[in-house]
Amino acid sequence: MDILIIGAFGKIGSKVVEALQENHDIITAALTRGDVRVDYRDAQSIRAMYEAVGTVDAVVFAAGGGHFWGSFDEIGEEQVKIGLHGKLLGQINTVLIGTEFVRDGGSFTLTSGYRSQHPGPNTVVVGTVNAAVDAFVRHAAVSLPRGIRINTVSPAHVVETEAEARQPEYVTRKETAAAYVQSIEGNMTGQMLPVWNIK
Amino acid sequence: MDILIIGAFGKIGSKVVEALQENHDIITAALTRGDVRVDYRDAQSIRAMYEAVGTVDAVVFAAGGGHFWGSFDEIGEEQVKIGLHGKLLGQINTVLIGTEFVRDGGSFTLTSGYRSQHPGPNTVVVGTVNAAVDAFVRHAAVSLPRGIRINTVSPAHVVETEAEARQPEYVTRKETAAAYVQSIEGNMTGQMLPVWNIK
Repeated sequence: MDILIIGAFGKIGSKVVEALQENHDIITAALTRGDVRVDYRDAQSIRAMYEAVGTVDAVVFAAGGGHFWGSFDEIGEEQVKIGLHGKLLGQINTVLIGTEFVRDGGSFTLTSGYRSQHPGPNTVVVGTVNAAVDAFVRHAAVSLPRGIRINTVSPAHVVETEAEARQPEYVTRKETAAAYVQSIEGNMTGQMLPVWNIK
Repeated sequence: MDILIIGAFGKIGSKVVEALQENHDIITAALTRGDVRVDYRDAQSIRAMYEAVGTVDAVVFAAGGGHFWGSFDEIGEEQVKIGLHGKLLGQINTVLIGTEFVRDGGSFTLTSGYRSQHPGPNTVVVGTVNAAVDAFVRHAAVSLPRGIRINTVSPAHVVETEAEARQPEYVTRKETAAAYVQSIEGNMTGQMLPVWNIK
């Protein structure tokens, strides 16, 4: 398959590339490097990325920074908008604009996060944004044309080693990347794939 | 209790007023009428509303129009933003700005909707927005100070008579309003109160 990976050099994205590159052709996208550059906060930039790449079988969005972590009394409208316009609208636009560039039976795999279901003291924006990504996927799955599938991977805090991942709320990059592979190579749609290890 | 109801003249809000007015003092808010005017799409207008009203025991947000219903290929970034900046950010700002105006042990009751969990052909924006409201409530509940509670009522399509409400995906105004009363007079927090009648 031809697989476009947005955020291909991040902690998650780079491991997804590693997990997929043996069996697939990978096109890397990121803000400042890669086969194609994209600023996912800008719909025009997303469209330009797809036009440069052409049609693909699968799109992975593993960028996802830029949403505000902070306590309830630190946040205001501007901090909420960073999350809504970044990780949420960036992924929605990646799907809305990208659908015409995905081949029949292809897929989108987005990224949310376990905070959608697990509130903490600083999670009001990130938790809301992640839950909205999960919901968008449930709804887009019933509307995408030509058998195109869509899922979201919802990781906890991603760390390198299995020793670190034995702590509550941590998971390895490897097990996180495996969920993206499942979404791309499997046949599920509309699913939130939790990569949680909450003890 | 002193209860501020935003969207007090709508299909839901007017029934909530009716259900509460015997036992409580109601302050009505809406865009063009009521004890105080508010445009919930504008954070400054929300702040001005609270400053005019002063402190209250409970705030109800029952406005909630302005989110786009439409099929997947009809929507683009602008339609998504109508939902994100309207029903979602309007409710988030109502809480973030309003917290200082709610008395110890008071409450917020927001409005989402059953489409968060029930995708249909035209629900990609409304479903995403409603799920984000539900998630915001889960997260705000663990962060609100001074024992302030927060819940969301998630109605299906609201109709007048019990005969109409026997159809799938319809509920009466009366049973919907009862959920707001439960949220205000009960002691629950962080809850999504489903008013669904899906057979």
